[in-house]
Amino acid sequence: MPSENGRTPATQNLRTPGPTPLPPEVREALARDMVNHRGPEFAAVLRECVDGLKWAFQTRNDILLLTASGTGGLESVVVNMLSPGQKVLVVSIGYFGDRFADIARAYGASVVDIAFPWGQAADPDVVADQLAADPAIDTVFVTHNETSTGVMNPLEQIARAVRRVRPDALLAVDGISSVGSVPVLPDAWGCDVVVSGSQKGWMVPPGLVFVSVSLRGWERQAQAKMPRVYFDWLAHKKHLEKNTTPWTPAVGIVFALQAALERMWAEGLEQIFRRHERIARYTRERLSQLGLRLFADPVHASWTVTAFQASDDVDAKALLRGLREKHNVVLAGGQGRYEGKMLRIGHLGSVEETDIDEVLEALEAELASLGAASAGVRS
Amino acid sequence: MPSENGRTPATQNLRTPGPTPLPPEVREALARDMVNHRGPEFAAVLRECVDGLKWAFQTRNDILLLTASGTGGLESVVVNMLSPGQKVLVVSIGYFGDRFADIARAYGASVVDIAFPWGQAADPDVVADQLAADPAIDTVFVTHNETSTGVMNPLEQIARAVRRVRPDALLAVDGISSVGSVPVLPDAWGCDVVVSGSQKGWMVPPGLVFVSVSLRGWERQAQAKMPRVYFDWLAHKKHLEKNTTPWTPAVGIVFALQAALERMWAEGLEQIFRRHERIARYTRERLSQLGLRLFADPVHASWTVTAFQASDDVDAKALLRGLREKHNVVLAGGQGRYEGKMLRIGHLGSVEETDIDEVLEALEAELASLGAASAGVRS
Repeated sequence: MPSENGRTPATQNLRTPGPTPLPPEVREALARDMVNHRGPEFAAVLRECVDGLKWAFQTRNDILLLTASGTGGLESVVVNMLSPGQKVLVVSIGYFGDRFADIARAYGASVVDIAFPWGQAADPDVVADQLAADPAIDTVFVTHNETSTGVMNPLEQIARAVRRVRPDALLAVDGISSVGSVPVLPDAWGCDVVVSGSQKGWMVPPGLVFVSVSLRGWERQAQAKMPRVYFDWLAHKKHLEKNTTPWTPAVGIVFALQAALERMWAEGLEQIFRRHERIARYTRERLSQLGLRLFADPVHASWTVTAFQASDDVDAKALLRGLREKHNVVLAGGQGRYEGKMLRIGHLGSVEETDIDEVLEALEAELASLGAASAGVRS
Repeated sequence: MPSENGRTPATQNLRTPGPTPLPPEVREALARDMVNHRGPEFAAVLRECVDGLKWAFQTRNDILLLTASGTGGLESVVVNMLSPGQKVLVVSIGYFGDRFADIARAYGASVVDIAFPWGQAADPDVVADQLAADPAIDTVFVTHNETSTGVMNPLEQIARAVRRVRPDALLAVDGISSVGSVPVLPDAWGCDVVVSGSQKGWMVPPGLVFVSVSLRGWERQAQAKMPRVYFDWLAHKKHLEKNTTPWTPAVGIVFALQAALERMWAEGLEQIFRRHERIARYTRERLSQLGLRLFADPVHASWTVTAFQASDDVDAKALLRGLREKHNVVLAGGQGRYEGKMLRIGHLGSVEETDIDEVLEALEAELASLGAASAGVRS
């Protein structure tokens, strides 16, 4: 029998920071047969999804759905918001902030990057100083929740700092692993562009990205000269006004999104946020009790993903393998410079304390089995 | 009870040229819970899919899987194969050929287009003459099966004509609605790049595109200067060599593809091709018997989609609506200049004669009900 979270005992406790487990009603929606993506049935589903996304994004801005993964969503920000040579300040606190800078450079934007140490959040004052020092910067990109380090930036404060120094700057936010799980208020905070990804807190398979675009975003889009067709936001906006998409969308994932949004509506946005906050805290407490080192600055610990390190004598890859093979618990490893040196637990979307309990029990057993000197002892 | 094709009596007879109906085992695969896209389970599925695609593409070239729809696949050809100002000959026989030319222009390629009249195939000799007349052209793009008109180009002859005049030219093929349903021999014919889309003959939801790339394609890719990150083929190739993808892929659609390829393997490629050829002929015969005007040159009629027109006193949109609302039969309308003036039947992927019988019975009833003067009488 499927549990409340849709996992059967025989299947894995998937706790990567995306893809996340699918609730039963989402899996049912995925099993629906196809429909004509130009017909009235799909138009109604699409409309409901856009409305639901506006609710979860807490915005009156336009919402677009693109068939792509998160990186495609970030690339769509670059090609719709920038022109060759345009100066963009990229505030990076990890792997995905760096990725945005790489994409912007690949398209010939002039990237000014502030990179804060991995594990730390961005300092709003440093962002403001950088903006003040360079009047040519008219665009700021910031990661809200850095999936590679489990750090959640103080987005509201960063947004206020940007607005204070450069009221007309365009502010674009990677909210891929935050929106829908963590409060984000694009309109109140002045976030012109916010990107999220279906495989995160939305409890839907990867393949869709959602982008909210403000009026300032649309003004910028009209001037931006990077080449674009597939990711052209205006084409999507014009078609969405007629409840359709410019290119064939990932129909099945849109069905899944509809079911997931209904589930989210039933739970309530505030409840979802509180659950994520609560389970993140619970995860950190339990990991600390096991003597594992939390990677993120505790003041800015993420509500959706927790990164940790075992003691130096434990091979992170062997630990991940043991968890998966012996306990059916699937965590993620480190990225970039932390590959093989870190573990990450995703606790977003469909997750309860009992899921975390299973992870911690498995961790404790595996650390003991690997003979970790630090198991049970704070290093 | 689901029929052999996975449709329940209560659901539609979906006969658009993509998305196509999903067989039961594909829908079951779609209902699977997520797995870690960086883990060994997914690596095994991905490897099986790449091998299966090589079999269906009948190629030894590399095969890449991109999370995008067909237009994204075409854009990936532009950004990986061309540089700004580079001269590309675009052989267009309809809406999707024109789309490729538009994308190439958006990126600053120098497009020379030969547009053959809608309903006609491309003439290989005209293509050869154009190439002979302009030595600066080093790239040729051609649509194999034009979904908007139901015309299937003589790809082998076109490819031979290209090779005769310009042995080293790069030949890129839109095989979105042909590969997997119709014989294509990229290696024997010298097609350097062939693109296909999951929602066509593959019986899988939209969201994945498949691209085969020859050695000449890779040499070109190393020189091509268009900006690209998400669609960068080399990043995909390098990751696929380790059975993974550079960005989070549409995991669920890859599961579906695995199931669909198993079904295709069980039927056999030759059997699949013969079935498509046979059902296409049957569709044309039945439509002609009803007095409906086939749009495509009969010599080059597509094996996967048939376009037709009713007599001038029949509103194509009303006819489509009647078919859908009263008979649960879903066809597609015309595109571009033929919007509202054409109907298209998709007969690719999961399709048998009985599906076409249902379409024709519904068409006959609706034409009678709309009082078409031509119903039953060849116009």
